[in-house]
Amino acid sequence: MSENVYVGMDLGGTTIKVGLCSESGVLLHTYEGPTGVAEGPETVIANMAEYVRRVVEESPYAWEQLAGVGAGVAGFTNVRDGIIVMAPNIGLKDVPIRAILEERLGKPVKIDNDANVAALGEAWSGAGAGVENCVCYTLGTGVGGGIIINGRIYQGSAGMAGEIGHIDVVPDLEAIQCGCGKTGCLETVSSATGIIRMAKEAVERGERTFIADASEITAKTVFDAAKAGDEVALRIVKRAAFYLGKSMATVAAVLNPQSFIIGGGVSKAGDILFNPIRETFAQLTPAPLQGGVQIVPAMLGNDAGMIGAAGLMIR
Amino acid sequence: MSENVYVGMDLGGTTIKVGLCSESGVLLHTYEGPTGVAEGPETVIANMAEYVRRVVEESPYAWEQLAGVGAGVAGFTNVRDGIIVMAPNIGLKDVPIRAILEERLGKPVKIDNDANVAALGEAWSGAGAGVENCVCYTLGTGVGGGIIINGRIYQGSAGMAGEIGHIDVVPDLEAIQCGCGKTGCLETVSSATGIIRMAKEAVERGERTFIADASEITAKTVFDAAKAGDEVALRIVKRAAFYLGKSMATVAAVLNPQSFIIGGGVSKAGDILFNPIRETFAQLTPAPLQGGVQIVPAMLGNDAGMIGAAGLMIR
Repeated sequence: MSENVYVGMDLGGTTIKVGLCSESGVLLHTYEGPTGVAEGPETVIANMAEYVRRVVEESPYAWEQLAGVGAGVAGFTNVRDGIIVMAPNIGLKDVPIRAILEERLGKPVKIDNDANVAALGEAWSGAGAGVENCVCYTLGTGVGGGIIINGRIYQGSAGMAGEIGHIDVVPDLEAIQCGCGKTGCLETVSSATGIIRMAKEAVERGERTFIADASEITAKTVFDAAKAGDEVALRIVKRAAFYLGKSMATVAAVLNPQSFIIGGGVSKAGDILFNPIRETFAQLTPAPLQGGVQIVPAMLGNDAGMIGAAGLMIR
Repeated sequence: MSENVYVGMDLGGTTIKVGLCSESGVLLHTYEGPTGVAEGPETVIANMAEYVRRVVEESPYAWEQLAGVGAGVAGFTNVRDGIIVMAPNIGLKDVPIRAILEERLGKPVKIDNDANVAALGEAWSGAGAGVENCVCYTLGTGVGGGIIINGRIYQGSAGMAGEIGHIDVVPDLEAIQCGCGKTGCLETVSSATGIIRMAKEAVERGERTFIADASEITAKTVFDAAKAGDEVALRIVKRAAFYLGKSMATVAAVLNPQSFIIGGGVSKAGDILFNPIRETFAQLTPAPLQGGVQIVPAMLGNDAGMIGAAGLMIR
């Protein structure tokens, strides 16, 4: 019981999840509480510190064994200086969170954004365990990305690497505008938002599809209909998958990673999504760049954020 | 005169260039001799060793000061094991060149392919000096690439990273087949070969252009005509530049490098090529990914290979 342990924190808009982690990336104990956004920034920060203390107290480990705290933040972060630059869903802006938490907890702290941290978690002790170089896609409201090089998060020159959702993949004639202001971004077709949009448009056009029967259209509605053989839903899923595979062909030509790890809510669709992604990747990638490259689902689910955040202190 | 020096070798199909380099990347002395491909592999290997001895002998430095030899090879290399896997223009195949040269010279040896080595040279003491993360394009017969991360060559999982020429950028309806077997690759439009092809097609179609007057069409013919205001040549140059800029928008979304460094024969065209590249990059790249990113010409010219090869031993 004298080994070091680490806390990884997943700071989201609704809940803060904290996990006590071993040096090898095993979750030992977890705690979860409300973020408290409505009560303002001071409360959010107080909750962060409080939940770290709580998860250690509830565990069989002593506070002295806690060697550091990592946090993954849903928002823009300045990793080097430990600042939350802008996290709209958490109500934090220009908060030097590392300095604040280090003072309150008396432990070293590191932060990064949630997509990078989830990527590190998967690369470290999830679907990428043992892999040195991999690229993680998170398919949710948008398409997030995280790049792991030599086992560590690759930040890029301005901390902006891994903006995979903004790779231009859709041909101009089919492209629509993305939230980023450009057109043709992967995110416009392969995120949950993109899938729901395509489904709603099909229903509005009056296409014959089970999707029209749903009271609310979600990405799951579309995948369920596709699994039941609905042609319209299948077409939408194939389109989302095609552009994911196309983007991976591009990323493979640049980075030649060992694996692509796909997580986030949309990735739970399984083979109906993964098979066409793999087919497209095989079609569009020059043969020497395909060798040994795997396209696999993420394994850690909602724990990736906590484990990866702890990994910030260890890796 | 007691400091260490390094030899960097640029192994091409016609000549072998060797340069004696200081630890800070300054070329101290160079030597150049024929590769000797026609005389067979044994001669090529003997020449490599001979020219290394020669460049040191001719210099004011002693053999004992030579701390290592790096070689950039025009071909496929296995960097980890120091093997030239396949270098068709040099007539070498499956040659464990590192072991051979280490035995003959009694010095440590490292190898890599020529595009990576040139990228390292530029990143180290050329257009990227002081930059940690950059992407180098070499515009010649093909479009080569080299990726520098944290000041070192990034190899990828199978040594295939930086195959930028095979990013799919041309829309399907305009795409032609690439040597790699796929369609739409950057290399089909933005290499010297691609530019010459587009020019020949324009001439064959009977378009009114100065290019038609040339006895032999080269990339330089096209750029000279464009500079003289020839509309057809301008269109071709803009097309080559557009797809370069488009590919950089994609690479920026993935890697967020500090700079793109463009070398190779085609890059000598100057502003007429660089200005439309920069315009396209600005149009197609989300604003946060543009911040501080520079698109600059390579500076070392033909010396990049020698300097970068020496850098293999130092960086």
